[in-house]
Amino acid sequence: MSARNVLYAQSGGVTAVINATAAGVIETARRHPEVFGKVYAGRDGIIGALTEDLIDTSQEPEEAIASLRHTPSGAFGSCRHKLKGLEEAPAEYERLIDVFRAHDIGYFFYNGGGDSQDTSHKVSQIGERMGFPITCIGIPKTVDNDLPVTDNCPGFGSVAKYVAVSVREAAFDVRSMARSSTKVFILEVMGRHAGWIAAAGGLAAEFEGDAPHIIIFPEVAFDDERFLDRVRECVDAQGYCVVVVSEGARYSDGRFLSDSGTRDAFGHAQLGGVAPVVAAMIRARHGYKFHWAVADYLQRAARHIASGTDVEQAYAMGRAAVELARAGKNAVMPVIVRVSDEPYAWEVGEVPLAEVANVEKKVPRAYITEDGFGITEACRRYLRPLIAGEDFPPFEGGLPAYVRLKNAPVPKKVAAGFDI
Amino acid sequence: MSARNVLYAQSGGVTAVINATAAGVIETARRHPEVFGKVYAGRDGIIGALTEDLIDTSQEPEEAIASLRHTPSGAFGSCRHKLKGLEEAPAEYERLIDVFRAHDIGYFFYNGGGDSQDTSHKVSQIGERMGFPITCIGIPKTVDNDLPVTDNCPGFGSVAKYVAVSVREAAFDVRSMARSSTKVFILEVMGRHAGWIAAAGGLAAEFEGDAPHIIIFPEVAFDDERFLDRVRECVDAQGYCVVVVSEGARYSDGRFLSDSGTRDAFGHAQLGGVAPVVAAMIRARHGYKFHWAVADYLQRAARHIASGTDVEQAYAMGRAAVELARAGKNAVMPVIVRVSDEPYAWEVGEVPLAEVANVEKKVPRAYITEDGFGITEACRRYLRPLIAGEDFPPFEGGLPAYVRLKNAPVPKKVAAGFDI
Repeated sequence: MSARNVLYAQSGGVTAVINATAAGVIETARRHPEVFGKVYAGRDGIIGALTEDLIDTSQEPEEAIASLRHTPSGAFGSCRHKLKGLEEAPAEYERLIDVFRAHDIGYFFYNGGGDSQDTSHKVSQIGERMGFPITCIGIPKTVDNDLPVTDNCPGFGSVAKYVAVSVREAAFDVRSMARSSTKVFILEVMGRHAGWIAAAGGLAAEFEGDAPHIIIFPEVAFDDERFLDRVRECVDAQGYCVVVVSEGARYSDGRFLSDSGTRDAFGHAQLGGVAPVVAAMIRARHGYKFHWAVADYLQRAARHIASGTDVEQAYAMGRAAVELARAGKNAVMPVIVRVSDEPYAWEVGEVPLAEVANVEKKVPRAYITEDGFGITEACRRYLRPLIAGEDFPPFEGGLPAYVRLKNAPVPKKVAAGFDI
Repeated sequence: MSARNVLYAQSGGVTAVINATAAGVIETARRHPEVFGKVYAGRDGIIGALTEDLIDTSQEPEEAIASLRHTPSGAFGSCRHKLKGLEEAPAEYERLIDVFRAHDIGYFFYNGGGDSQDTSHKVSQIGERMGFPITCIGIPKTVDNDLPVTDNCPGFGSVAKYVAVSVREAAFDVRSMARSSTKVFILEVMGRHAGWIAAAGGLAAEFEGDAPHIIIFPEVAFDDERFLDRVRECVDAQGYCVVVVSEGARYSDGRFLSDSGTRDAFGHAQLGGVAPVVAAMIRARHGYKFHWAVADYLQRAARHIASGTDVEQAYAMGRAAVELARAGKNAVMPVIVRVSDEPYAWEVGEVPLAEVANVEKKVPRAYITEDGFGITEACRRYLRPLIAGEDFPPFEGGLPAYVRLKNAPVPKKVAAGFDI
């Protein structure tokens, strides 16, 4: 059997380590030229595949590919384009197969979250049906840590580390001035549906009474009164209060706190920003001096403080995907299987894509303290190894030296164009 | 002459490296027991001195003091209490001298910005007048970098590095998804009066067209139309636009952008948050998908990504203050004198406190590009060495290991109390 080409695409929100996965895919494929021809990448993810806008990674030198391991963001571009159902919109799937056929793509590696794994699964089905069998391997990625089956998702550990470090640092700051200055500090973190990132803030605490004093999870219905009472108790007891709030925090009726009425100068409901809403609530009730921060993209791009575990696992998932393809597997995704918490040990497993697609893993109730405002020891046991280890990028002139690839285009071969 | 005790106090907003200065003071004083007795610290800064709430640093082991070098925040507490004029409120100054006398304090080291140096200057005058001569040495500190005479201020280089690194990382993220997702990203940074921190964001750019594409300085009157046009040009040319905005950004009539009409759910003008105001402006005009982040305390507490230059200079200023006192100097402040930009060389100088107090150094016009939206090469030359070098703290279990001192109180000796 002669070698066939590979298409690798990044999907959805990028992370500090998705490029480490790309490095794992490309370096592993390059070691097996008898199986894998060229590794192409979709420019801007699946959009590049649909529009036949492919990148020829074989034109990148070894050092550039190796540098992906320490470079955040999506080196080939990513997108939020979700393919519809097979029956509903077969044209997009057929187009993909046309592009695959034109470029002799025998392997499709799709690096993303639940939606993307749904797509890879469907592509594997339609290929068969159209008489162009294609090996589809999903590769897990999401800062939200909400994929099922895998113990954790590459991308999450680094955000978790960033948030835990930031909470610890800001808490030291606030505590040292609380007597005469800011009493309440609020940090807003990502996680629209699942509170894993907010939970990670809990790792900042070392001793009883340490920050964060309150975590607001999307999984626990928000109750103004209980929250405001807790803030006061905390300021009374500790002299200050640090709150970590998930962007997905919501009331029992499902309304997001961030939609609760803040208007901008033009009278529009303000988009985003649950931290200022919580701050306004505290000011109205208690009058405490407060500060708030919204980490937004800084948290998921912060390769400078990436978790060593996360970088290693992100790379390993890329490598494992290629090895699964080489072993003749199809429509599967490599996963991280935890063997033990402490000392931490994990191994690579696999799961059929059909079992991954569109399932969301939330923070289990047993990981949240009874009062709903903190994390339990079980949660700490789970989270701790995921932020362990440092993997600093190289620095030049005081700044991290991140690589930018040439991203040379592959000449087009399909006559027809395609509109997204 | 027998040894006399030292009082060291931290003042104003804390930084990632003010404790490195404390280490410089304490370690240097400990090496000269013939001159310096015990080193006391004011608990919560000058408030501790006024209320006779002193900390005995001699009870801290050497390793704890050494660990201050890598620990952010104010280890002894800080405050925003500004002493009034000598004529206006002599009682506070007299009280300080009473406390100094009771504890045989011969040396007062005040670590802070312009206001604090005004205080140290006045204390040196009143001591003389009250027949209790005291050696007063100011030590520079401020993330705002707005002290005069000194080439730069300890604390600034680390915020500058944090902001430059964060802008580079977020820009990589935004660029990789701009085709189908966020087109404009706005990062709000500190600097109420001076735009040094915003300027530092400009260091993130490596090549023509790189982020940040627009910097909004407090020094340049904000013009909606020119700004919004520039955003559009930038999205047209680059596909995305990254904006760094100083919290002190203001219109030509002096109004802060952050006061420009955002109302919270309770109808109050929203405090803080110029980033969402700028975002709303862009949405109203262009409709681009946007994201914004507010770094707030994270930026000044981020010891994990401190500048090596900054840590070294912060320590050196503490050491120099003690050496100046030992050399019989009074009412002076050590400063950083730049000898050359590249290779970077600097030495320690000194300045009379009278020349430092209440003078603010803004970003000079020559450091801002003609259009008011960027930094010039002269500015880069100035800023580059200040963010150079890494000085990572030790990590334990994935988190920086920051020290917490015992902060044992010194028994009170003054009969009367004092209300702040």
